Amino acid sequence: MPIPAIETLAAQIGQLPGVGKKTALRYAYHILGMEEGDALGIAAAICDARETVRPCAVCGQYTDRETCDICADPRRARDNICVVSAPADVPVMERTRAYRGLYHVLFGSLSPMDGIGPEDLRVAELLARVQTGEVREVILATNSDAKGDVTAAYLARELEPYGVLVTRIARGIPIGGNLEYTDEITLAQALAGRKEM
Amino acid sequence: MPIPAIETLAAQIGQLPGVGKKTALRYAYHILGMEEGDALGIAAAICDARETVRPCAVCGQYTDRETCDICADPRRARDNICVVSAPADVPVMERTRAYRGLYHVLFGSLSPMDGIGPEDLRVAELLARVQTGEVREVILATNSDAKGDVTAAYLARELEPYGVLVTRIARGIPIGGNLEYTDEITLAQALAGRKEM
Repeated sequence: MPIPAIETLAAQIGQLPGVGKKTALRYAYHILGMEEGDALGIAAAICDARETVRPCAVCGQYTDRETCDICADPRRARDNICVVSAPADVPVMERTRAYRGLYHVLFGSLSPMDGIGPEDLRVAELLARVQTGEVREVILATNSDAKGDVTAAYLARELEPYGVLVTRIARGIPIGGNLEYTDEITLAQALAGRKEM
Repeated sequence: MPIPAIETLAAQIGQLPGVGKKTALRYAYHILGMEEGDALGIAAAICDARETVRPCAVCGQYTDRETCDICADPRRARDNICVVSAPADVPVMERTRAYRGLYHVLFGSLSPMDGIGPEDLRVAELLARVQTGEVREVILATNSDAKGDVTAAYLARELEPYGVLVTRIARGIPIGGNLEYTDEITLAQALAGRKEM
């Protein structure tokens, strides 16, 4: 009864993050109901992106050239490196318009439980960049969860011998956040990170 | 700064129902981070499904043959036709295991506002099937919204001359539904449709 081509399509779509079986099947039926060109456009865009996009030779973020636009931009401050876990974090940071330095993408977080050690991340590449002596500050912008914190702590220790300033992005109550609905750990961190007004 | 191949991929993915700009970009980055074979597997499944799957020559639901498995199944009651709006509605009905007849997919609902008239739906095909004289009952299972109701009312009128029993699936409080949280229109319909216990 089930049609293999539809089942396969739904299973393939189910690889996307947060897409369950029902949603995947809904997407599959939608793709079948689309104009031919629009449906094949999705497939073509996947193939094209996989062919065109690669990690920047310097920072690791996605680019369609050898070196990404940020690394190649002479107006970016070359003495600042912001370390993030994933390529997707770079556009998020960029949207703040609050950072004018360079990036370094680790492609993951340390996770001994999953067998992911420093050699699985782009740690050596980061240390090599710092070793050039051009870098003044390394901003650790890994996620604010257990793995991100472990990764940040590890990197801070590894970077110590190089005599660069190592900072971690602040934790606290998000803008618009309500004290009543803030979990106690975040609140404790917000309190510890208080500043004179 | 934005990479055209990633922007295009996100825009293409954004065609899926309920997928906004942010989610589309998240899916795009996820696809870029996947194993090559898994990512291209999605593209291949789209192409394959579009090539393999077509509407059943009789009922219109998706199939990879000339006639779908339900229409070809001799154990299905051939005197019952359940009319639904979309191919995706057929597996939903089938999951109930409460229906053993045939289907007819309209591929849409009447919507004068959007310029969708009976000639844009598979109405003529339905009437042709009823005309064979094999059909005893037509169950209208279009959606329980304005367009679905208009479509059902239109079909009921069109089917009248053929002397078949035309029914509409019941409306009422869903199983597990709470009176307090049921909207008044549904509740009014549930009251009107009450049965002796």
